[in-house]
Order: sequence, then structure tokens, then C-alpha cells
Amino acid sequence: MNTNQQAKPNKKDVLIIGAGGVAQVVAHKCAMHNDVLGEIHIASRTQDKCDAIAQSVKDKGSFKQAAILHTHQVDAMDSPALIQLIQNTGVQIVINVGSSFINMTVLEACIETGVAYIDTAIHEDPRKICETPPWYNNYEWQRKQRCADNNVTAILGAGFDPGMVNAYARLGYDMMDKGSVTDIDIIDINAGSHGKYFATNFDPEINFREFTGTVYSWQDSKWQSNKMFEVKRTDDLPVVGVQNSYLSGHDEVHSLSANLDVPNIRFWMGFGEHYINVFTVLQSLGLLSEQPVMTAEGQEVIPLKVVKAVLPDPSSLAPNYTGKTCIGDKVKGTINGVHTEVFIYNISDHEDAYNEVGSQGISYTAGVPPVAAAMLIATGEWDAGKMVNIEELDAKPFINLLNKIGLPTRIKDSEGDRALAFDI
Amino acid sequence: MNTNQQAKPNKKDVLIIGAGGVAQVVAHKCAMHNDVLGEIHIASRTQDKCDAIAQSVKDKGSFKQAAILHTHQVDAMDSPALIQLIQNTGVQIVINVGSSFINMTVLEACIETGVAYIDTAIHEDPRKICETPPWYNNYEWQRKQRCADNNVTAILGAGFDPGMVNAYARLGYDMMDKGSVTDIDIIDINAGSHGKYFATNFDPEINFREFTGTVYSWQDSKWQSNKMFEVKRTDDLPVVGVQNSYLSGHDEVHSLSANLDVPNIRFWMGFGEHYINVFTVLQSLGLLSEQPVMTAEGQEVIPLKVVKAVLPDPSSLAPNYTGKTCIGDKVKGTINGVHTEVFIYNISDHEDAYNEVGSQGISYTAGVPPVAAAMLIATGEWDAGKMVNIEELDAKPFINLLNKIGLPTRIKDSEGDRALAFDI
Repeated sequence: MNTNQQAKPNKKDVLIIGAGGVAQVVAHKCAMHNDVLGEIHIASRTQDKCDAIAQSVKDKGSFKQAAILHTHQVDAMDSPALIQLIQNTGVQIVINVGSSFINMTVLEACIETGVAYIDTAIHEDPRKICETPPWYNNYEWQRKQRCADNNVTAILGAGFDPGMVNAYARLGYDMMDKGSVTDIDIIDINAGSHGKYFATNFDPEINFREFTGTVYSWQDSKWQSNKMFEVKRTDDLPVVGVQNSYLSGHDEVHSLSANLDVPNIRFWMGFGEHYINVFTVLQSLGLLSEQPVMTAEGQEVIPLKVVKAVLPDPSSLAPNYTGKTCIGDKVKGTINGVHTEVFIYNISDHEDAYNEVGSQGISYTAGVPPVAAAMLIATGEWDAGKMVNIEELDAKPFINLLNKIGLPTRIKDSEGDRALAFDI
Repeated sequence: MNTNQQAKPNKKDVLIIGAGGVAQVVAHKCAMHNDVLGEIHIASRTQDKCDAIAQSVKDKGSFKQAAILHTHQVDAMDSPALIQLIQNTGVQIVINVGSSFINMTVLEACIETGVAYIDTAIHEDPRKICETPPWYNNYEWQRKQRCADNNVTAILGAGFDPGMVNAYARLGYDMMDKGSVTDIDIIDINAGSHGKYFATNFDPEINFREFTGTVYSWQDSKWQSNKMFEVKRTDDLPVVGVQNSYLSGHDEVHSLSANLDVPNIRFWMGFGEHYINVFTVLQSLGLLSEQPVMTAEGQEVIPLKVVKAVLPDPSSLAPNYTGKTCIGDKVKGTINGVHTEVFIYNISDHEDAYNEVGSQGISYTAGVPPVAAAMLIATGEWDAGKMVNIEELDAKPFINLLNKIGLPTRIKDSEGDRALAFDI
């Protein structure tokens, strides 16, 4: 045992929670970097889904060093069961890529056991839609003190958006003259095609919940309320070309507005006409409601769960998904007093993602960054010993690492369009 | 008792089954003609709904002769309970305007007790959509012999469509040279507006079931199959003007094709672009399916029943419904060897219907004709002593009676557009 521990002084074992499309990416990527991360475990409510991911990791030969993906069944809403699992497996990092409803029970288990916590989306109460801003105040940040007291590193929102886009915001902010940044506009365009009549790229329940409530944006240093599809912008973007996007409510606006001194922070999600039409019909009819309705037969049903049941499983889209995503931050301010706009972004390809890890591009962009965060915790660079959002950490090692492991960052400004990397 | 019977020698007491918008119309109209129909009873699964209709009939002072509407609770799928109710009340005519799923149990109770039966829509099995044509062969016509053996008058499809349009088809057919009719096109246009984002004019479950299956039409003297919204026509119609309608599957085609020697019999339903868009989205997503799906939480749900639960209750549309309906038959053939087309039709007004009986125009057009049929059974003119579809009966007294009680018929041909009535 001693020999083994000496052989991997920085290795940290990982427990992945969840077994959807993003979890599949996380599992593959953890396996590809098990020289840094050590033993990899995956647990979800459904053992079969974990086993299928383990099989996929085995089939693609993803482990860098010979190993197996350990699978477990657990109810992630059950903190004591999670604590038991963390203690039994001896993991030091938990990557939570399960449903947004389980964040607090998973975080609680991490605080209790003193292990690091990473997630990729904000906690949600299944009974509520779109709570008071800033959203992080409602659940996550209430645990800040406890994380600090227990020396627990908890990295919130470490996917792509939120996640890399927070790092992009921080980088753009730091490039500009102090206090000069007026606007951060995060733009998320999926120019890919899945070939189905209609599908969501991740859990329909979470996907629709993003759009059914109030759209909160940070403008003139205060919260502004709009409705979905009320405000539109059009950009000519690298690779994906001219694209429409709509002002949307999204996690990162709720931490960036607190952590950066910038008066306007907005999130824009790209949608085609067809998506908007289907969404509008479902929304107008009340079929996206998370509140139960009663059928004529007396059965109590949550409409949104039925819509989810009839839509394609997002993970089923991967094999036929083609095209690219472009996600990035437009940051406006001055550099040496000169007005400047930079666009820091990533282009990902659905087919490439599928070939590498068996998932589509949306899952890929969400799943690779938390693995980078875990690796930076393992190396100590991001082992903050407290709860943080991505923009509170040094973005440079994160960007550099992601350049190497699948999500290269580029920058476009008046000097041109080029790869972005840092000498540290 | 003897005295009483002498005072109303032709009176027949009526039991209305159902308590929706159509039942409300039937109740009011029966009350308005209780000099012919005698005691009026109404029964449904929900006593409260019956009581509300009784209150409405009372409030509007609809009874011609002082009386009350007797209300009862009954499960219409339970034939023995229905038999008991028929025997206890002593009614001689049952008007079935409940769900299409109950026709066979209600008919069975009428056959067993020897009372007359009237319905307005074909029987459906809730587990099946759009069975083999002709639809009447699947359930109703299998009971023809038993009705004849028991001297039971059973008038099938006695609403507007099916119902009055069958009478119109018969009249058009009889106006033309024998064997000369080539086409009967039944056109149903609702040019009214309910002011809601989306709503169906009667039970959404039944409404959508009409459009989700194969569209059967009778063309070249055989069944042809199409999909909904595949075949469109445009007509310039009286009062409602230029309107689009779509080849649809509908009950009357399935009896007219058997009872009249006409090679082409089609049913066309009017739809606006918005209706078609909403329908197409719901249908494409699988939300109109009558087959259960399983939610992620393991709840088995029939999507169509959830769509029904979120849509407005059709009876709630009545107070704000404006505009008119135009429903009629275009019949092509020769008269004295000359090619002729006649359009026999009715115009109804939503507001007028609401003011008279508290229901919207679609319920009104469906609910008045079965009351006329009941009155003609009471007077003996339609007391056939067997099972018949409307086109097998003499249309003239039916049209004349409906001219007087709320649904006037008009005819438009080369000689102009005029009221249609008959000297008998």
C-alpha cells in the first residue's frame, strides 16, 4: 500500500455522480487522465446506465493507465447514502453531473466527508422555476461558510456555460483597463443538426425550465426582467456564421454580476425558428408547467414530465449529430484607453465528440471542463479549500489544460483571430 | 294516472346521458318542447354537472310547461345501472350525448329495456384510433338485428355532423335524377373565434382522435386512405366567405357510402393555420397519442389525456365565442339530365346560441338535432322500431322541425340562395 501511495503522490480518486450524456464524457475524460486522477468511480440511480458507460470506456480503450471504471447504484437525493459511498470508495473529488435537483444533497455529502465538489449547473428545486436573483444566493452560497470551515474545495458551475465562459469573462476583464469593462455578452450557438423533428440537447426538463420563467439579465448594474424570445441579437461569428440568439436567463450571469465590476452582463442562446415555434406552442398550452394538473380520470400529472417522456433521449442524438457549436464571450472595455471588443470562444464539432467519447457536442463541451477542474484540484492549482465560482480562480491553467484535452480556446479582436494560450 | 296519460297521449319521457356542452343544449331544447317530450331526466358520472344544467334550465325559464329537470348520477359504462335508471324513471327515449366511449353500454341498456336510443357520434374504443371502415360495422351495426327483434328505435348519428348533413345528403340525392349523383362533399366551417390561444370545440380527446389516424374517404366507390391535412379545398361559402377545409375522417362517410349509391363521399373540416400548427407540433411530438408513455419517475401516463387536461374546457368558451358556423353538403348530379350542384346548409351564430341556451354554436348545432329526432319519435314519424342512420329516414319532417326549433336550413343552387322547407 505504501509503495502504491508513493507511486502516485498527487493522484486523487474521483466519483462521478450521474449517468447521462455529460457523465459519459466526464467518465471518458477522467479515464484518459487517470495518471493524474487515479481510480474513477461512477454512480447513479440506475446501475445499468453506469455499466453502459463503463462498457463504452472499456470499448474505446479510454484509460491512459490500465484500470476499470467502478460503477455504483446510489440515490443522490440521499446524503447519508452518498456519505457512505464516498467513505467506502475513498474518493477525494466528486464531479456532480447528475440532475440539477441533487446539487445540495451531493454538496452536503462532500462537506461532511471533506472531499472536493465540482458541479456544472446551478441547484434547482423541482417545485420552483426561476427563483429570485442572484440564483446562487438561494442555495449554493448559503454553504460558503461551511465549505471554508471544513477546508472543502467546491467549484460551482464548472461546465462550459457556466464554466469556461466564466473563465473567458475573467480573462477579458483582466485584459482591459481596470474598471473599464462595460459589457460581457455570452453567446451560445449550436449550429449542429440532430435530424429529429424536435429534441433538446440535454434533459428536456432542465432545458425548458431555463426558458419558461423570467429572463434575468444584469444591465445598468441591476437586475432586469424580460420574457424569453423578447430580445434578439444577430452576430456574424467564427465558423458558424450569422446567427440569431435571444436574451436568456442563465447561471453565470448570477455569479459574474457579483464577482466582476461590470454593469452589463447578458447571456444569449441561439435558437432556430422551428425550435421557437415548438417551444411557444408547448409553453402557451401549459405543457411546460412543473405544476401538476389533474386528468379527467383523476390522475395527477406534471405536464413537463410527460413532454420529457415523449421527446428523444438527448443521448440518443449523438450518433447522427453533425455540425459545430460556437460558445464565447464578447467583452467590451478599453485597453490603454482605446475602446476595444474581444471575442473569446471555442468551436466544437458534434461528430468529433461522438467519435472520441460517444456523446454529442453539447454534452462534450459540458463534460470536459469539470474534468480539467478536477485535474487542477489534483495538482493543487485549484484546490481552493473553499466554495468558488470559476471566475474567482486563475483562468490561465484552466484554459491551457483545456487547450490540450479537447476544448481549445481562441480569441478574435482587432488584431485578428488566433489561438489563446498562456505562458505561466 | 289514467287522466294524466290521456292528457299527453303522445308524450314520451326522455333521459339525457351526459352533462357537457351538448347535453346542456339538449336539456334546454327538451325543456322548451316538454309539451311533446314530457318528463326530462339527465344523468352523468358527475351529479354536480347535471345539477348545474338543471339550474341553467331553471334560470333561463326554458320549460314550456312547468316542470323540473330531474338529475341522476350514473356510470354510463355500467349497463345494469343504466337499465335500473331507465326502469326507475320510466323514460321511453334515451338521448346519449356523453363520451363516444359509452355508446354500446347505453345502447345495450335501451335494447334490454325496449326504449328508443339516439346518439350523435360513433362508438369508439378508448384504446383504438380509427378502426377499419366502415366504422359503423365495428360496433353499432352488429346490434341491428337485436334492435329489430326488440322493436327498438335506435337513431345513430343524429347531431349535426353526422346528423343533419346525412339528411342533407339524402335530400340532395333525392332531388337529382336516380343514380346520377357523383359527389357528396360535406363541408364543416367554424368561422367563429373563442379568443383563447388554442382550444377545441368539444372534448379534446375525441376531437384530436378524429385527426390522428388514417383519413378514410369514399372515392370511386371504394375506401381511400390519406393523412390529415394532406388534401385541401377552398370554397366561397354563404356568410362565412372564402374558407379552407381539409379532407377528414368522419362518421357520416361510413354510413352514407353504404346507404346511398354515390361514388364519391367526402368530409371536409375547416382549420386555420394556427390550429394546424399547434396540432402538427403536438402530433409530431407524440403528445396526441392514446398509448401510455412512462415518465422518468415511472408514472404511466397517456399523453392525450394530459393535453386534454391543460386545454380550456370546451364549455368554458361559450361566453366569449363570437362569429358563425357554416355546415352543409355540396351535392353534384343531374336534374332532368342537366348537370347541377346544390349546397344545402345551415348558418349558426355562437352568440345567439349562448344567449338562448348558454352553450357555444358547435354544441348548439350538435345538440338541437337529437331533440328533433326525439320529438319525431314521440310523434311517431321516426319511430322506426329498428336501428337506422339518419339518411334512412324521411328527411322532410326533420328539416321542417329544425327550421322551427333553431337550425334553419337553406339551399343554394343555380336558382339562388333561399330557405328550404317542405310541404308534407
